[in-house]
Amino acid sequence: MSDEPVSDAPRYAYLGPEGTFTEAALRMMVPADQAHYLPVIDVPTAIAAVREGEADYAVVAIENTVEGGVTATLDTLAEGSPLVILGETVLPVAFELLVRPGVRVSRIRRVSAHSHGWAQVRRWAHATLPEATFVPSSSNAAAARLLADSSVPADQVGFDAALAPPGTGAALGLEVLADRIADNVNAATRFVRVGRPQEPPAPTGADKTTLVVHLPTDRSGALLEMLEQFAVRGVNLSRIESRPIGERPGEYSFSIDALGHIAEQRMAEALIGLRRTCPVVRYLGSYPAVHREVTPIATGTADADFASARAWVDELRLGRHA
Amino acid sequence: MSDEPVSDAPRYAYLGPEGTFTEAALRMMVPADQAHYLPVIDVPTAIAAVREGEADYAVVAIENTVEGGVTATLDTLAEGSPLVILGETVLPVAFELLVRPGVRVSRIRRVSAHSHGWAQVRRWAHATLPEATFVPSSSNAAAARLLADSSVPADQVGFDAALAPPGTGAALGLEVLADRIADNVNAATRFVRVGRPQEPPAPTGADKTTLVVHLPTDRSGALLEMLEQFAVRGVNLSRIESRPIGERPGEYSFSIDALGHIAEQRMAEALIGLRRTCPVVRYLGSYPAVHREVTPIATGTADADFASARAWVDELRLGRHA
Amino acid sequence: MSDEPVSDAPRYAYLGPEGTFTEAALRMMVPADQAHYLPVIDVPTAIAAVREGEADYAVVAIENTVEGGVTATLDTLAEGSPLVILGETVLPVAFELLVRPGVRVSRIRRVSAHSHGWAQVRRWAHATLPEATFVPSSSNAAAARLLADSSVPADQVGFDAALAPPGTGAALGLEVLADRIADNVNAATRFVRVGRPQEPPAPTGADKTTLVVHLPTDRSGALLEMLEQFAVRGVNLSRIESRPIGERPGEYSFSIDALGHIAEQRMAEALIGLRRTCPVVRYLGSYPAVHREVTPIATGTADADFASARAWVDELRLGRHA
Amino acid sequence: MSDEPVSDAPRYAYLGPEGTFTEAALRMMVPADQAHYLPVIDVPTAIAAVREGEADYAVVAIENTVEGGVTATLDTLAEGSPLVILGETVLPVAFELLVRPGVRVSRIRRVSAHSHGWAQVRRWAHATLPEATFVPSSSNAAAARLLADSSVPADQVGFDAALAPPGTGAALGLEVLADRIADNVNAATRFVRVGRPQEPPAPTGADKTTLVVHLPTDRSGALLEMLEQFAVRGVNLSRIESRPIGERPGEYSFSIDALGHIAEQRMAEALIGLRRTCPVVRYLGSYPAVHREVTPIATGTADADFASARAWVDELRLGRHA
Repeated sequence: MSDEPVSDAPRYAYLGPEGTFTEAALRMMVPADQAHYLPVIDVPTAIAAVREGEADYAVVAIENTVEGGVTATLDTLAEGSPLVILGETVLPVAFELLVRPGVRVSRIRRVSAHSHGWAQVRRWAHATLPEATFVPSSSNAAAARLLADSSVPADQVGFDAALAPPGTGAALGLEVLADRIADNVNAATRFVRVGRPQEPPAPTGADKTTLVVHLPTDRSGALLEMLEQFAVRGVNLSRIESRPIGERPGEYSFSIDALGHIAEQRMAEALIGLRRTCPVVRYLGSYPAVHREVTPIATGTADADFASARAWVDELRLGRHA
Repeated sequence: MSDEPVSDAPRYAYLGPEGTFTEAALRMMVPADQAHYLPVIDVPTAIAAVREGEADYAVVAIENTVEGGVTATLDTLAEGSPLVILGETVLPVAFELLVRPGVRVSRIRRVSAHSHGWAQVRRWAHATLPEATFVPSSSNAAAARLLADSSVPADQVGFDAALAPPGTGAALGLEVLADRIADNVNAATRFVRVGRPQEPPAPTGADKTTLVVHLPTDRSGALLEMLEQFAVRGVNLSRIESRPIGERPGEYSFSIDALGHIAEQRMAEALIGLRRTCPVVRYLGSYPAVHREVTPIATGTADADFASARAWVDELRLGRHA
Repeated sequence: MSDEPVSDAPRYAYLGPEGTFTEAALRMMVPADQAHYLPVIDVPTAIAAVREGEADYAVVAIENTVEGGVTATLDTLAEGSPLVILGETVLPVAFELLVRPGVRVSRIRRVSAHSHGWAQVRRWAHATLPEATFVPSSSNAAAARLLADSSVPADQVGFDAALAPPGTGAALGLEVLADRIADNVNAATRFVRVGRPQEPPAPTGADKTTLVVHLPTDRSGALLEMLEQFAVRGVNLSRIESRPIGERPGEYSFSIDALGHIAEQRMAEALIGLRRTCPVVRYLGSYPAVHREVTPIATGTADADFASARAWVDELRLGRHA
Repeated sequence: MSDEPVSDAPRYAYLGPEGTFTEAALRMMVPADQAHYLPVIDVPTAIAAVREGEADYAVVAIENTVEGGVTATLDTLAEGSPLVILGETVLPVAFELLVRPGVRVSRIRRVSAHSHGWAQVRRWAHATLPEATFVPSSSNAAAARLLADSSVPADQVGFDAALAPPGTGAALGLEVLADRIADNVNAATRFVRVGRPQEPPAPTGADKTTLVVHLPTDRSGALLEMLEQFAVRGVNLSRIESRPIGERPGEYSFSIDALGHIAEQRMAEALIGLRRTCPVVRYLGSYPAVHREVTPIATGTADADFASARAWVDELRLGRHA
């Protein structure tokens, strides 16, 4: 078939089964005919598949997910053998209301969805299907697939309609009674592509670098000092989240997205500063930011500024004053 | 019945149904005979119940949950009419394996659990019940209750065992084949009790203050400047999480837990500093920290230090030098 | 005489004798008919006269002086019984070339001046009077007065011309051959008026507050932390000078001029922060800045901002959320 | 004579004439038989002599002087063609009371000294020689040399005793009636040796680096940001003094001594940071600190820490994770 990938195409592990938001994100990153899609049961399994060589990459949710797993993603990346993030994408959290062809809205009595998906559309459901009851399914895709299975009589399906990620209806031949369903139109999930250590993608000017940093515990003001390592090089952060470390009270890990690329001097110097002063610095990759907004470079923080200042000091050390 | 609360007992909304982790947390906070328990469908509904006066309090997960909703909790508290956190508790993420009396482990072929709960015990299940398949349920409690319903014949239950929060077996009369089941023994969920604006609980010396702060966008270093408002008063943070604000790139909200109580001068002064310089500061309450570790007070940051320094300035303004 | 002050006029001690730059500064601050001028031998003596009640005020150089004594001024104010600065003025460092009437420039062979004054005009003297030799005098005024003393024959004066502060020629009836003489046209000395503790002059919007602050020695970053006490309240500094403390290596005192008035909340709060965290904070007064440039007030640092933020916290403490 | 330097010995310009504190400091730095001593009229002249090649080095007071000139020294070094400080020494401010042989204390009626020297011993003089009057001289050495000139009859000297720097009596064959005279036993002057640009002296572990830094004016918090360039590399300051720049209000220059050597990574990186972000950074040399106290090196700021952190980043850039 035309959309079968060639046998040496890269293998992508992701939270399956078919029809999840994660699969939709994966499809945005690499078409199905250019990769082997390997659905797995959860995020840690997807990441482990990369570590163990069973997959080349994993696509996992990292922020604001409706399928759970952000904490799992961050924790799984933060521990164990090194991995790097190679890219990111963002998917709006929105659903389709699917039925077997010919079923009308007024006939819907039971709606099946994953419980987290249901939480994202409850207000809509309350307004649109006030009399429908909720039937939980094990995933965003499972209900739709059961509905699409023509071998199952309608009265044995257990529900009349399914809520599923965008594109599911077309893929399965179901009728889409409504789409772009979301109580919060701004809700979106960020997904990243993870691989084994390798050279980062070339800088684009609109990049992110993801880090995990532990703070030294023997000094007050450690958080401020850590952030100053970024600030004095003009590096801004787009995300910071503290996480307690194990059972030790007062010890924290920080998951950070910084704007810039390790190939840029200002980011490299910030990393050097962190590495010198923090007990743990885990580099999780530099990659193009999905928003593609070019990172503003503050005065004195361009690569050329670092190079000329370093040359100046080198000259001074030799007794030459420009 | 003895455990019926009196009619004027406070009403607590929580993520139900009966048997959720949230209910277990609620039970730890207030016994069932001293409160009306109002199970609701999700966290936003629980919080809305308090805002609308249908409940006096809500108990909601706020960190590291297995039942989803942390993002929902933080977002729902951050917007809308003011609410305050009045207390917190922490519950280990651990499960019981429940069966109808007499069923042996070797006979378990299908295990039902909420999909997020299942994610927390997968390694254990893989090792202990390698041949069992997973049957999703709509909540952590639903499967156990179906199992306990003696009117349903065993062959119509749809599974042989249920995984449920601690205490569920005893409550429902099921047999507990294993307990304290958790792939990660450190996993725990933090829950908070939320109410309408009121005087905070008295300071205990081991308190937290929860805030939502938006940064000014017109200046670099805004995050550092915001954190310095805490640092110069000797206030440490135990949690910080950035959240993008709506659709505006580069604008962030921070969800913060700071160690200390608004009744303490150092916290009050930090709040004043934030209020003066940040476009949005939302105070979400001061309450006893569940860990009960007395917050260390740095030199010069006790209430008496503030009072004597202020008295000194007051005297200087009058021309009197001590 | 008309310029005799009334007997209860205030007494001003200053570095004499008549004719010094300090006297010129004093004259700018208060005319001779409104004060008793008390010339004394040096700055410590002038300050001691105020402490001991022999004078009501002292006028002393505090920055960039040609008459020595800045270090002495700062040190003398920093130790001993409290005093406050009540005002400041700035005097350009410039000289007059004075001769007895009729003496021409071409006849000048010897020029007398105080050695520090001479240092300020050497380039001018080298260009204008290349053959003249320098005759040191004990003060900027002494040489001019000897020249003006008609009882001393010209050949016993010991020099032909004197360099003296502006206005000296007119006061003594000498001929001014050149004025505004200065190798550095920007050189100027700042003088302050010092008194015993009293209410500061009312804020003008363009004020300074002078402080001496010792840093805690048991923590790195102490200087930064001290400066953050100003920064978080939006207070800028116009002068900072470190001074070693006694014989203890690594211990420093800082002499600071901060822009603002102790009657303003942002300055009061900064002082409270310093008082809480630094081992020594000596307040040396709030007074109008001579430059009269209104201090810009950063967003969120006006008195009204402090008042409304404090009111907000007071309400929150009572359970009232605006 | 044995103490004549060889003809190719280095030439040292200094504030003369013979007998000044500066000469005493020069003698401590290099014995008279190993250098040509070139007394000049003031500090700017001494520094100019080096710039113009008339001298190889200048020895000038830089802090807490009794001979004036600190401001002149800092300003003269800060402008004009580059020079570097190569070493420093500290001299206590203390005097000898000198008379012609046989003169007793009780016979002293007039004491000659430089007016600044006199300011340092006034309390002592008031207590010890209450009836003596002060006769100003043009330098600390001039009075002693006149006294030592046997061709001048005693009644034509104009005074009975001279106050002079330590060692003057022995050098001139005068009787020392008292020594170590000082109102403030802690008073001391710091002198530096200045030369044309050249490789700095090798690091000793107890070094200083002297800088002049101008702040950017277009941003608040510029002073804090400048100091953070030092702090994030663990560099401490031993001196900081602000100076207004020319006539522009609100623009400041800072004269700074930082602990460490430009050959050390932490200092080199701090200099690079300053150079990138400040409009003017003038390097005035790295040299051994006279106090010889080894500079403590904070965790993560040794050269090896910088080297290993940089190597780590270099590896990461190539896709290799240690």
